[in-house]
Amino acid sequence: MAQEDIFKKLVAHCKEYGFVFQSSEIYDGLGAVYDYGQNGVELKNNIKKYWWDSMVMLHENVVGLDSAIFMHPTIWKASGHVDAFNDPLIDNKDSKKRYRADVLIEDQLAKFEEKMNKEVAKAKKRFGDAFDETQFRETNPRVLANQQKWNDLHARFSKALNDNDLAELKQIIVDQEIACPISGTRNWTDVRQFNLMFGTEMGSTSDGALKVYLRPETAQGIFVNYLNVQKTGRMKIPFGIAQIGKAFRNEIVARQFIFRMREFEQMEMQFFVRPGSELDWFDQWKETRMKWHRALGFGDDNYRFHVHEKLAHYANAAVDVEYKFPFGFKEVEGIHSRTDFDLSQHQEFSGKKIQYYDPELGKSYVPYVVETSIGVDRMFLQIMAASYNEEELEAANGKKDTRVVLRLPAALAPIKLAVMPLVKKDGLPEKAREIIDDLKFDFKCQYDEKDSIGKRYRRQDAVGTPFCVTVDHQTLEDATVTIRYRDTMKQERVAIADLKGMIANEVSFKALFAKLN
Amino acid sequence: MAQEDIFKKLVAHCKEYGFVFQSSEIYDGLGAVYDYGQNGVELKNNIKKYWWDSMVMLHENVVGLDSAIFMHPTIWKASGHVDAFNDPLIDNKDSKKRYRADVLIEDQLAKFEEKMNKEVAKAKKRFGDAFDETQFRETNPRVLANQQKWNDLHARFSKALNDNDLAELKQIIVDQEIACPISGTRNWTDVRQFNLMFGTEMGSTSDGALKVYLRPETAQGIFVNYLNVQKTGRMKIPFGIAQIGKAFRNEIVARQFIFRMREFEQMEMQFFVRPGSELDWFDQWKETRMKWHRALGFGDDNYRFHVHEKLAHYANAAVDVEYKFPFGFKEVEGIHSRTDFDLSQHQEFSGKKIQYYDPELGKSYVPYVVETSIGVDRMFLQIMAASYNEEELEAANGKKDTRVVLRLPAALAPIKLAVMPLVKKDGLPEKAREIIDDLKFDFKCQYDEKDSIGKRYRRQDAVGTPFCVTVDHQTLEDATVTIRYRDTMKQERVAIADLKGMIANEVSFKALFAKLN
Repeated sequence: MAQEDIFKKLVAHCKEYGFVFQSSEIYDGLGAVYDYGQNGVELKNNIKKYWWDSMVMLHENVVGLDSAIFMHPTIWKASGHVDAFNDPLIDNKDSKKRYRADVLIEDQLAKFEEKMNKEVAKAKKRFGDAFDETQFRETNPRVLANQQKWNDLHARFSKALNDNDLAELKQIIVDQEIACPISGTRNWTDVRQFNLMFGTEMGSTSDGALKVYLRPETAQGIFVNYLNVQKTGRMKIPFGIAQIGKAFRNEIVARQFIFRMREFEQMEMQFFVRPGSELDWFDQWKETRMKWHRALGFGDDNYRFHVHEKLAHYANAAVDVEYKFPFGFKEVEGIHSRTDFDLSQHQEFSGKKIQYYDPELGKSYVPYVVETSIGVDRMFLQIMAASYNEEELEAANGKKDTRVVLRLPAALAPIKLAVMPLVKKDGLPEKAREIIDDLKFDFKCQYDEKDSIGKRYRRQDAVGTPFCVTVDHQTLEDATVTIRYRDTMKQERVAIADLKGMIANEVSFKALFAKLN
Repeated sequence: MAQEDIFKKLVAHCKEYGFVFQSSEIYDGLGAVYDYGQNGVELKNNIKKYWWDSMVMLHENVVGLDSAIFMHPTIWKASGHVDAFNDPLIDNKDSKKRYRADVLIEDQLAKFEEKMNKEVAKAKKRFGDAFDETQFRETNPRVLANQQKWNDLHARFSKALNDNDLAELKQIIVDQEIACPISGTRNWTDVRQFNLMFGTEMGSTSDGALKVYLRPETAQGIFVNYLNVQKTGRMKIPFGIAQIGKAFRNEIVARQFIFRMREFEQMEMQFFVRPGSELDWFDQWKETRMKWHRALGFGDDNYRFHVHEKLAHYANAAVDVEYKFPFGFKEVEGIHSRTDFDLSQHQEFSGKKIQYYDPELGKSYVPYVVETSIGVDRMFLQIMAASYNEEELEAANGKKDTRVVLRLPAALAPIKLAVMPLVKKDGLPEKAREIIDDLKFDFKCQYDEKDSIGKRYRRQDAVGTPFCVTVDHQTLEDATVTIRYRDTMKQERVAIADLKGMIANEVSFKALFAKLN
């Protein structure tokens, strides 16, 4: 199946099984905002717990924080967001539609690529096995012409972005004769900067209200609390502050489901270190974080590092952990050596001394920072994509059958155990509920009595429930049940008394944590 | 100690021990917004876990949801918030200060009460034991005169509020000769309505952006997802949807620390029932919720129900669970029978049919709703207030000593176990860390080596750590440690191998959950 089809199926699956709904769906939705359903919220909470506990329980020198979404507006001056957190926008005067200028140009680059790929595909079809793609690309005049166009445009575009040259972006759009997809005309306005922060007004005095922003990242909440945490927690450098929370960006082009949303959640940890030691810590956190991702068991080869060649002004090293999504390798986590940029800025803008007295060195300094940053929603999508499987099965009657199964790590599964009475009578439902009443204090159980047992198993497979237990008439006699395993579909007869021991360890986070040591 | 003093100490304690910081403190703060520090975030997360698990794990028919803060703006028309979620504000023209008109009048009522109380206090002092307060209040002319003034003002004020009569509110302020506390003048503007929702603009087209609001309550996110959850979760009425999330209200007068904030967090559960059964379910949830609060062990008598006499337009029954704060009994949870108001409104405004087909009745209806609603931050404050103790101790040398101890339920404590080497040498730190490395997968541990053991115990008492373990030279010989209990301060020698078993059960949520059955 094509990768794009898998992605479409995944989106449909998320809706159908209560993982992700479009926000305000009965009101025809709200762009690039999503809600997590009854299974989605459990999976999301479990992802957050995996991250949080691995940060603050397993690391002696990492503590938590929960700072508010509202912050003093000067913080966003200090961080650079008020002045530089912008997208370049352009309007088509005929359709009245607004576009990101950089995205229009990227689409144009993609057109040249498409033309080259078409030539290659045509030739491949004609020559069959004898076709040498590399040689063809290096010699075919039509491919070469398009490659030259791509190269020229790419060089010019990169320079314009680099120089933040809005007039040049407009000129590129004019020179490339890029037309509005709606009106088809090339009647464009100038390119203007549009800040991505959501603003609102706080309080009310007759002099006016205070203009504040919804934070576009959680990191600054950590930086402005550095002194509070360091002093009240008696923390010694090196130490980290971990935080999970919402952030907001007014994206103009928001695509790919929950991959890029206007309201999203971040898991960020800022690690404060002695200046000069930051690149060692950067390397160490790179390894620690990669291990954390790979411990989920989705295949080590599906993860890779992507080193940033062009660094943000505040960074002296940056790397992404990428996962192989159905639409290609994409970032799931960023690890950045942010230097002392943020703390120094806040020191300057707040007028408060933000320094650490290092008893070993006998002097004070502004700490350097290594950041690890995950988008929870993106991580959620990564785990759904990695878990989603369509499997061909041999049915009892020899016919082909398909099952959809979410191979979630048991600790992350929304429901750990489904308990099903074989029939809705003879005291089997009561017995099933009795089993749940005994186990529900230890892990999340679900009762299910509707439809055939086979259908019920498939429903649980589709939401990733690792264990199902069926209560039948024999259960009433000998206190045993049939347990069925999601991944192998194997079934076996076990004593009710053994269930807790069998399941509790499998679904606990300890098994995941053990892989991190 | 006076109750107000306890409250002040509590606020200072929250800051000093990393529970609650003022938001953006280094920028001189942001009004009525707070951040949770390294210990506060753990306590808050544990409170949320206690609520969440008790809702969705222990109740077969309650599932979770995590809807976004951003919602379609028409939702707030349907819910009534756009038109009616207002505060009546008035400006003093000289000071340019803005006030809530109702609060100015409430302060005036309080002045009459204060005058009466002063008379009573004076008389009490004069007559001593012989003083009969009831008789005095019923006969003293000065008290009676003030009581009459109070009665008249209260009646007029209640009617004005009831009628939503802004001109009358202004007239009351004029007639009562209420002056601005800043300018001292009575030069007032008219009273105007001020909506409490924070607004912002989403997206950007050349036609303009969409005006959206930060949700002022999480409940509507549940209502607009009713169909999604009911259908994809195959839920049968009665069933509930539970949600934890941020909400925002632009309060003009925000007082009492984290008791009333502009950005706050709610834990709400909406329970959907057959029309006509709502008052039975209301009674049942009242009892369930009261049991949940009392299970924390802060004294059953410190909780009470407060029945609402005046009901909101959407409710046919409402009650608060109140806790005895240092500043009096205050609401910690609201339980409301909301009828079919919200779902009917969304049916009307969205044009989508929001009904449930009841197979037993053989017909469809708009479900009725019973809501349970807690402010997480207020609950946090309640637990801090209930746990905070200053104890007089007899010190070894006969002198009086005081300790501050947070008697938190162990499951809620930020840190479960502190491990302390007696001295920073001889391999004791290494041994202490070895113990932590073995236990940290099960519960949150903290290493502490600074200052005397006595000081370290006090530090852990102050953040509510239920267990401390000291590693000494004997530990290296016989693998035993001294365990010290927070509440009794008793110490005993135990084997390291027994620690996990001794502590894990005590700090688990299962002990709390067991009290809920």
